Amino acid sequence: MSAINDMLAANERFAATYTMGDMPPQPRRKLTIVACMDARIDPAPALGLHPGDAHIIRNAGGRVVEALRSLAISQQLLGTEEVAIIHHTRCGMATFADDDIRGRLRDTLNADADHIAFLPFRDLEQSVRDDLEAYRQSPIVRQDIPVRGFVYEVETGRLREVN
Amino acid sequence: MSAINDMLAANERFAATYTMGDMPPQPRRKLTIVACMDARIDPAPALGLHPGDAHIIRNAGGRVVEALRSLAISQQLLGTEEVAIIHHTRCGMATFADDDIRGRLRDTLNADADHIAFLPFRDLEQSVRDDLEAYRQSPIVRQDIPVRGFVYEVETGRLREVN
Repeated sequence: MSAINDMLAANERFAATYTMGDMPPQPRRKLTIVACMDARIDPAPALGLHPGDAHIIRNAGGRVVEALRSLAISQQLLGTEEVAIIHHTRCGMATFADDDIRGRLRDTLNADADHIAFLPFRDLEQSVRDDLEAYRQSPIVRQDIPVRGFVYEVETGRLREVN
Repeated sequence: MSAINDMLAANERFAATYTMGDMPPQPRRKLTIVACMDARIDPAPALGLHPGDAHIIRNAGGRVVEALRSLAISQQLLGTEEVAIIHHTRCGMATFADDDIRGRLRDTLNADADHIAFLPFRDLEQSVRDDLEAYRQSPIVRQDIPVRGFVYEVETGRLREVN
């Protein structure tokens, strides 16, 4: 069995009891989350979110610079009015530098990735501050709404705010 | 109460009973999901994924072109070996054109977004095919692994493959 075939079998079981309920496209809580793709984080239970509540944007590191297109769509077309940016402890993004992954891509795929910023970071709290600043510097997202930054502790399941 | 304050209160309750367990950073199923940020989709139960199982990348539409950095990191540094690209019915991305959101951003934020591609689409199945092709055209992701595309039906909870 491949992982995707396992996923399809699980989806069959899920769909057997699924009902959509009353879910408009506009997130009920008018909230957008920006978080990391990390496998150890399941935003719904960790943040108390139910289907229909919030947009959840995820990428390697939870980097805002790559989430601006989605944030603009979330705000302009689907009415969200708060943003939570969530990075996390033990993040893979703190374990490499651009040159490391560029070297691996050259070695394994013969790919030239020297022009690509992979957005790793060294200091976790600073990465949240940098992303709050990246948000503030963007002209395409709302500056008149609450935008807050957090670290999620994989060890404890707890969020702590970064100011 | 703001939505973020509600989220923090829910996280307190979550953390009270949380234990991390045995979760290395490498996804257990060696699987990466690319899906939409849509509030109505909760990938974990819908796909049978548990914490630690898979990387989950999400953006407006589940567009691959914006997920390539994350996919390269997922594969090169964290050892994933399968990719599932999942778009969905009733997607907000099928309800606007670039000119619509550019006009709104001009009107509400006085922002010039004429240089930004917001990646909307008209045909859902074709958007999945386009993203499978975007994957195949990228030199920085592995071409020797299973990469499959799906539509998730918000109405039924069911995945169907797009070839």
